[in-house]
Amino acid sequence: MAGPYLSFLSDFGTDTAPAVCRGVIWSILPYARINDLTHSSRQFGIRDGAFLLWSSVPYLPVGVHLAVVDPGVGTARRPIALQVARGDRLVGPDNGLLLPAAERLGGVVAAHALENRALWRTSVSHTFHGRDLFAPVAAHLAAGTPIEEVGPRIDPAELVRLDLPRASVRDGGLDTSVLFVDAFGNCRLAGQPAELAALRARLEPGDRFSVRIGSSVQEVPWQPTFGVVEAGALLLYEDADYAGLAIGLNQGSAAERLGLATDTPVRIEPA
Amino acid sequence: MAGPYLSFLSDFGTDTAPAVCRGVIWSILPYARINDLTHSSRQFGIRDGAFLLWSSVPYLPVGVHLAVVDPGVGTARRPIALQVARGDRLVGPDNGLLLPAAERLGGVVAAHALENRALWRTSVSHTFHGRDLFAPVAAHLAAGTPIEEVGPRIDPAELVRLDLPRASVRDGGLDTSVLFVDAFGNCRLAGQPAELAALRARLEPGDRFSVRIGSSVQEVPWQPTFGVVEAGALLLYEDADYAGLAIGLNQGSAAERLGLATDTPVRIEPA
Amino acid sequence: MAGPYLSFLSDFGTDTAPAVCRGVIWSILPYARINDLTHSSRQFGIRDGAFLLWSSVPYLPVGVHLAVVDPGVGTARRPIALQVARGDRLVGPDNGLLLPAAERLGGVVAAHALENRALWRTSVSHTFHGRDLFAPVAAHLAAGTPIEEVGPRIDPAELVRLDLPRASVRDGGLDTSVLFVDAFGNCRLAGQPAELAALRARLEPGDRFSVRIGSSVQEVPWQPTFGVVEAGALLLYEDADYAGLAIGLNQGSAAERLGLATDTPVRIEPA
Repeated sequence: MAGPYLSFLSDFGTDTAPAVCRGVIWSILPYARINDLTHSSRQFGIRDGAFLLWSSVPYLPVGVHLAVVDPGVGTARRPIALQVARGDRLVGPDNGLLLPAAERLGGVVAAHALENRALWRTSVSHTFHGRDLFAPVAAHLAAGTPIEEVGPRIDPAELVRLDLPRASVRDGGLDTSVLFVDAFGNCRLAGQPAELAALRARLEPGDRFSVRIGSSVQEVPWQPTFGVVEAGALLLYEDADYAGLAIGLNQGSAAERLGLATDTPVRIEPA
Repeated sequence: MAGPYLSFLSDFGTDTAPAVCRGVIWSILPYARINDLTHSSRQFGIRDGAFLLWSSVPYLPVGVHLAVVDPGVGTARRPIALQVARGDRLVGPDNGLLLPAAERLGGVVAAHALENRALWRTSVSHTFHGRDLFAPVAAHLAAGTPIEEVGPRIDPAELVRLDLPRASVRDGGLDTSVLFVDAFGNCRLAGQPAELAALRARLEPGDRFSVRIGSSVQEVPWQPTFGVVEAGALLLYEDADYAGLAIGLNQGSAAERLGLATDTPVRIEPA
Repeated sequence: MAGPYLSFLSDFGTDTAPAVCRGVIWSILPYARINDLTHSSRQFGIRDGAFLLWSSVPYLPVGVHLAVVDPGVGTARRPIALQVARGDRLVGPDNGLLLPAAERLGGVVAAHALENRALWRTSVSHTFHGRDLFAPVAAHLAAGTPIEEVGPRIDPAELVRLDLPRASVRDGGLDTSVLFVDAFGNCRLAGQPAELAALRARLEPGDRFSVRIGSSVQEVPWQPTFGVVEAGALLLYEDADYAGLAIGLNQGSAAERLGLATDTPVRIEPA
């Protein structure tokens, strides 16, 4: 029989910190199946981590999702565990990292502060709560410990929320901005294809838009996929993670070409 | 009992895409053992991916090998599954990526186009066939689905083939080129030690060759291993992946030192 | 039931070498649980690898720890396996890589040279002993082969030892140096908080020290964790891996800010 499933996302990078956390998990739950989502989430980038977790969870088995991007480690920020409607439990710091994913899994059913030290490592450092607190609690939850035992129930309305950028239609164009730049340099934008479609009668492959970034303007077609445009050419497309807008470049980096980074404002108008 | 074995190679990089595919595989086959070959294969570099897969498969358990370097995702290129003589099945795009590995595993016994949508994710994006199509088909094959069920049989002679560089002896020297540059900066070259040996009466440790790259010429010894030459010194050696030629540098990057990249021509003569 | 536990650390980087070793392990022991500690240990950096292994092992399950940072591959350096007091076995080259971890696990109980070729791959290359020798021996040990069968017992006093830097108190200050720079740019320093405390009557959060690196001097507070200082500010703190000194920077790289690398001398005095 397959062991309990845990996901694990962090900004710990390429040293041994993720492995140490897996070691702690396997010490508590030797037959855990651990899926490392990524440990290259931008360091201290809570929103990037939240985006990556949010974009991954629909495709992952129901289980425990451990996420640690935690610039406030050792300060007063609360460690939490969330039970969501799909049946998953999310474990991490209360800094906004977990909530978008929790909402994508049907919403928070119960939130608990991690206060039961019996579920932590015996000795807790000030700087590595991933190892000493989050990983052991995640392992205990995956092993069957009820979420009520991790600590007192807290009001989900009091959880720290991130302010995510939104798109808005104004003067016949879409004002949006960059949500996330992926490893290929493709840029997820706030907003939906339906909002682009609303700027025209319809939205079909080959429709052209002018994309304004700062003082620079590019004409970019709407296309279903990269290989439809020439190598080195830009395209607007529907991102595979959800029904959201994205701007990419076939066989290259749109972010580099256009100088885009998280939160860069982008305006899109019919060309 | 150990679960079915799957390998997984891609150019997806350090974001969550590989983990999302593992999530899809584990949703179908919870006890799969997944071995991530690498997800840092050069982006859009079909030949680099083909080289890495080819050089790995002899050392891997018999199983399903999933490989996705797919600049043509969403276009007319075919998704395929190959049955090979050793008993493995390979899954990926029909762009040349799989064939060298298939041949190293005894050759293609049967080739099938992936057309049975019952084995795909319900909703298939235009840009992420790794998640929506290749990973689920690989999981179903590993779970025991016969390869005949993935789609119609196709003629192996019609599969897309890469043109791999070859070495040739001419005017008392070996004209070769760089097949692959590894993470250490060691460069695999087309050709075999036997071809170097043929330039002399014999090939023994310490034998010296002149290596011409563009207008630059280096004298480089043939040696069995790195530690035999001084730190910072070049050597010609037999690559561990197969009986092929390679040029390396003890405790450094030969590629950087010599300005070598994929396909750079190299001429080797007895010194 | 959970399979035997193996850790695996190397400097193999992002190519397929680690996966090939896992393939070899799983071919011998299909139900092994393999925890990749890191494969981004600095290339040819034996001491960095030794530090990472040493700092990880206390948090890992008892098992077999395979470590390969091996610039001397194929030369006369011995391949070894160590039995330690906690019950773990360590496998790797006899170049100093394993000993600090072995000592942290209670010390070497028995040391053996790997000479029993029946436990190796049939064909052994000159350049990839990770795949051909260390990984298969580690898999056999994890599968239950007694350590006596890997080869003859050797005297632990003859094992190659690294010279690790130490801190010393002199003229009212602590002369130390950088042991290791982690992926965040935090720098572990030789020495203990108790040695800093001895420079004053006590050591409490907010106590200020002057840190001299070359001709540059910074005033840096002692703090329990990053989030207590402002983003971009330096701190001295107790490293989570052990009761050792470290210098960090909240949400940035102390190594970059201060120009620190392995072995850079640092002098710390009360400010």
